Amino acid sequence: MIPLAARPEVAMSTPPERTELLYTGKAKQVFATTDPDLLWIHFTDGATAFNGVKRATITDKGRINAQISAGLFERVEAAGVATHLVQAIGPADHLVHRLEIIPVEVVVRNIAAGSLSKRLAIPEGTALPRPLVEFFYKSDELNDPLITDDQALLFGWARAWELAYLRDAALRVNDLLCGFWDGLDITLVDFKLEFGRALGRGRGGQILLADEITPDGSRLWEKGTLRKLDKDVFRRDLGDLGDTYRELFERVFGEAAGR
Amino acid sequence: MIPLAARPEVAMSTPPERTELLYTGKAKQVFATTDPDLLWIHFTDGATAFNGVKRATITDKGRINAQISAGLFERVEAAGVATHLVQAIGPADHLVHRLEIIPVEVVVRNIAAGSLSKRLAIPEGTALPRPLVEFFYKSDELNDPLITDDQALLFGWARAWELAYLRDAALRVNDLLCGFWDGLDITLVDFKLEFGRALGRGRGGQILLADEITPDGSRLWEKGTLRKLDKDVFRRDLGDLGDTYRELFERVFGEAAGR
Repeated sequence: MIPLAARPEVAMSTPPERTELLYTGKAKQVFATTDPDLLWIHFTDGATAFNGVKRATITDKGRINAQISAGLFERVEAAGVATHLVQAIGPADHLVHRLEIIPVEVVVRNIAAGSLSKRLAIPEGTALPRPLVEFFYKSDELNDPLITDDQALLFGWARAWELAYLRDAALRVNDLLCGFWDGLDITLVDFKLEFGRALGRGRGGQILLADEITPDGSRLWEKGTLRKLDKDVFRRDLGDLGDTYRELFERVFGEAAGR
Repeated sequence: MIPLAARPEVAMSTPPERTELLYTGKAKQVFATTDPDLLWIHFTDGATAFNGVKRATITDKGRINAQISAGLFERVEAAGVATHLVQAIGPADHLVHRLEIIPVEVVVRNIAAGSLSKRLAIPEGTALPRPLVEFFYKSDELNDPLITDDQALLFGWARAWELAYLRDAALRVNDLLCGFWDGLDITLVDFKLEFGRALGRGRGGQILLADEITPDGSRLWEKGTLRKLDKDVFRRDLGDLGDTYRELFERVFGEAAGR
């Protein structure tokens, strides 16, 4: 398995500048830029779990997540699933297309764990006969509840073709990511994706993969040992999350997470 | 609105006899009969809420529910949705076809209430733009969690055509019941249905509406006053459930719940 190449610094002719802070999330800050169609995302070292109840700062986490996510988004884009990423513009920063987030989080599961195991009493670690796609309503207040297609349609959270696109794109991303992590001797148990409706010039009607693909929103188990290489280390107090993420970075890029 | 006619006592040439008790539920007992393809259901006066945490005995409840359910099942059957009911065989007893219960409870909602309001923050009483069908995994241990079609398929709880049938049949039953309750100046807010796979001779592949259609598994609001005429009276301590059910019986049958 060839790890992700260190990201080439593809310079835009005149990259836009970061302007005002628009939003501060649990692990990201979003800024406007001098280009009205582009936003600037800064990955912070913040870690939260259980909907913000547990919090910590993990050195290097922002840089590691930004770089892993950029590398994976490039692979996904190359495989034909459009993403919001324009370019990585710093060690912990992405320049992205502005979009309207679809309030439906998409989870793909290959192995039972987390809320699936808890809600339906499927023992953690049970291999599923095929990947399962689940939709959750994106709402911190409601703790991101599982929703059905019909609920999403009826309450206007997404249109039928959008749900069909989300499901199809998520399964394609799953195929790609399974192959990628498999090559690093890691099992992709499950992961979360977010999508948005592109708002920029000439992009009407296009859905872009947004947010991130990181060990914050994935479950990654080392093959054989089943050791967790993801945010469950933090959620379940299984060790030092920074050490785990630095190890993961090295596996992904074949070099230490320096800079 | 013509209320349900008092049930005609359609005698089978030789009705089977009740034999051993097979199962005791929260509000029903199920017996075998001398006919291997038929079961005998006795509706008890038991009332439970919150998955059995709250319990009471409500005089007349068994008879009232058995008779309302039999009347509604006859209408549903006449409208072309097959049910498990062979005949009402006593004031609180149904003779039914033996079947394998599909572990997917079907809820149809016309107005937001209950778990929908709670999980998705839709204010109780919000009229939905169209009826919403939801599936729940039938499991007391798990508190009947909401499930998606894909979960039901992947875990083998139902087949795709069965889910399609359940959804279609539930919407047809909803149309019929909305009309029925509307004629009695009652709004059908939501209701739960269960279905089973027929097991008897010559019935392979047929799905039958099973269980019951009663104010235990429905939300019924008096038009204008929005007074509850269903088990929420018991769940939420809003009054005497026996009085409520006796009033409902009189509206449905045009006579007091005597005998």
